[in-house]
Amino acid sequence: MRKTENVILTNMCMVYSGSKILVQDRLDPKWPGITFPGGHIEPGESFIKSTIREVKEETGLDISDLRICGVKQFTSIDNSYRYIVFFYKTDIFTGKLKSSDEGNVFWIERSELNSYTLAEGFDKMLEIFENDGLSENYHYFDTEWKCENL
Amino acid sequence: MRKTENVILTNMCMVYSGSKILVQDRLDPKWPGITFPGGHIEPGESFIKSTIREVKEETGLDISDLRICGVKQFTSIDNSYRYIVFFYKTDIFTGKLKSSDEGNVFWIERSELNSYTLAEGFDKMLEIFENDGLSENYHYFDTEWKCENL
Repeated sequence: MRKTENVILTNMCMVYSGSKILVQDRLDPKWPGITFPGGHIEPGESFIKSTIREVKEETGLDISDLRICGVKQFTSIDNSYRYIVFFYKTDIFTGKLKSSDEGNVFWIERSELNSYTLAEGFDKMLEIFENDGLSENYHYFDTEWKCENL
Repeated sequence: MRKTENVILTNMCMVYSGSKILVQDRLDPKWPGITFPGGHIEPGESFIKSTIREVKEETGLDISDLRICGVKQFTSIDNSYRYIVFFYKTDIFTGKLKSSDEGNVFWIERSELNSYTLAEGFDKMLEIFENDGLSENYHYFDTEWKCENL
């Protein structure tokens, strides 16, 4: 009776401080470019705790006081799985910045973001992080891929 | 290589108007009592659109301007599936109130909520809806069921 589906659960976090944002220049050839740190949620894991763990692993920082600000989602073309990214943000953190194998992390002025090469689709995701009136970055395939911010 | 898991995706929405909240007195014997309207997310469906659809079906109202305010989640004891509820809220709506087979829906003063019989666990979920500093109602089994608001 239960309607389960195959889902990949991930998180992403905007760590900010005044006018600065913490970005990661991803090395992954499948999705390179500037984005925010984040990663996979482990089975049974709290979404908030998974985000704290991933940000620690990828930036060296200990974050707290996370607030959910939206989700990204898409279903694969063959309908075999749904991919979900939970978006969080916080400006509360301690520790010393340290990059990981995932990519270099560094602070930039938010106003200078567009001078960097962004990861594909990151510009639309950013609208969700920054606009309290938007909560979902929804991708769907309808003869071609479409993206809607809701 | 992909880490998929079996997930049940659902939504719940707090529709409010000033000091009043719209509640549903659920008839389902598995989870009876006062809660907010909501239901299952269909395969491939937008989370926001699924919430608009469920609120329409269960209350007759057309809602808009939804904002995500948290999630509830638990993993079944046998680890066979994870259950996720996306929480939204809005005070923008039109239409005439109409109950469904799921249960009677009606407006109450928020301050009078505790004079009703709440659905099990709804009090802790409500903290997530109402406290901007909390984003997750996390249930886990550790010799017994535990609940943490994060």
